[in-house]
Amino acid sequence: MKLQLALDMDSLAVARALLEKTADLVDIAEVGTPLVLREGAAAIRALKKEYPHLLVLADFKIMDAGAEEAAIAFDAGADIVTVLAAAETVTIQRACDIAADAGREVMADLIAVAHPARRAVEIASAGVTYLCCHTAFDMQLSGADPARELSEVRAALPGARIAAAGGITPQRIGLLKPSGPEIIIVGGYVTRATDPRAAIQEVSAAMS
Amino acid sequence: MKLQLALDMDSLAVARALLEKTADLVDIAEVGTPLVLREGAAAIRALKKEYPHLLVLADFKIMDAGAEEAAIAFDAGADIVTVLAAAETVTIQRACDIAADAGREVMADLIAVAHPARRAVEIASAGVTYLCCHTAFDMQLSGADPARELSEVRAALPGARIAAAGGITPQRIGLLKPSGPEIIIVGGYVTRATDPRAAIQEVSAAMS
Repeated sequence: MKLQLALDMDSLAVARALLEKTADLVDIAEVGTPLVLREGAAAIRALKKEYPHLLVLADFKIMDAGAEEAAIAFDAGADIVTVLAAAETVTIQRACDIAADAGREVMADLIAVAHPARRAVEIASAGVTYLCCHTAFDMQLSGADPARELSEVRAALPGARIAAAGGITPQRIGLLKPSGPEIIIVGGYVTRATDPRAAIQEVSAAMS
Repeated sequence: MKLQLALDMDSLAVARALLEKTADLVDIAEVGTPLVLREGAAAIRALKKEYPHLLVLADFKIMDAGAEEAAIAFDAGADIVTVLAAAETVTIQRACDIAADAGREVMADLIAVAHPARRAVEIASAGVTYLCCHTAFDMQLSGADPARELSEVRAALPGARIAAAGGITPQRIGLLKPSGPEIIIVGGYVTRATDPRAAIQEVSAAMS
């Protein structure tokens, strides 16, 4: 299992400060959507240059212009870019085609999709590397968690490479493990911790 | 009717050069998603500073963290931010709440939604200012156009303030007019024209 740290903070400086303390415990550094919206592709370029041994994921949540937008992420050095599973299938396909040409990867984010397992099956053939079962940040206080969605997607696609995201804590990782996720994405549990390094060590321990 | 020019190009420099030639013919300058992904919120800040008399729309296509992401656009000076109609309703609601606090506006983009009129009705009460009937760029070669979607949304919501986007040309504006759009969004027809000023004048003429 890989650990992905979502850098959803306001500024590149804050993201850098967190990575300085935690990079040796992380497999994938996610340039989160808010960071992209504030800093643009420069944030991807900076983090990939500073941490070339980490995989860098650009959380672009592409909804249209799949080829053009994925190219922006890859040109900046991203190893993985996200597309929305809610996008038109042709958009997902075009992002995957560009990724294949560039030797990079696409993660399709099932956030806010009404029937995640059904949509996962529809888009699996587009060439996506990973499917992400993702409880929206705005839904986390409603008690939703990605474990049920993950088990449904796993049942529909036994061989899929799946990521899980959205309010994940060390306690919840135990509920995810039976469905065999390849990537566990943590954000607030680490970024809002008083001791982020200790928090990420708890996550790692729960994953192993 | 207002004319919105989508600045979907690669760089702020190219966007600026186009606006220099056309700003007097434009009501709303859209900082397009690709421009946001490349340049971040700095592109919004720069264009609002240089063109304070224009409305500036940030095409963030928000899918999660409605309050936090809308705040990034408004902090940078955007008058309008886009959220995806495909997002969870609570995400749309939170973006609208932040917009109301800031005296700004939200446009909900119906791109890639399976039942646009039904979804438009569901989210109308969230406080969105505009609904956008939008044929994805990646779908435009398939012959789709926003006129039918626009007429369906209009029939479902007679009083809605509606924008139309996606492959719009002067010829197609005639098909949109009977449904009473408030905003016509043009992109490639102008940005890819050899004479962008002439192209936008054709659009204006078709709108009047």
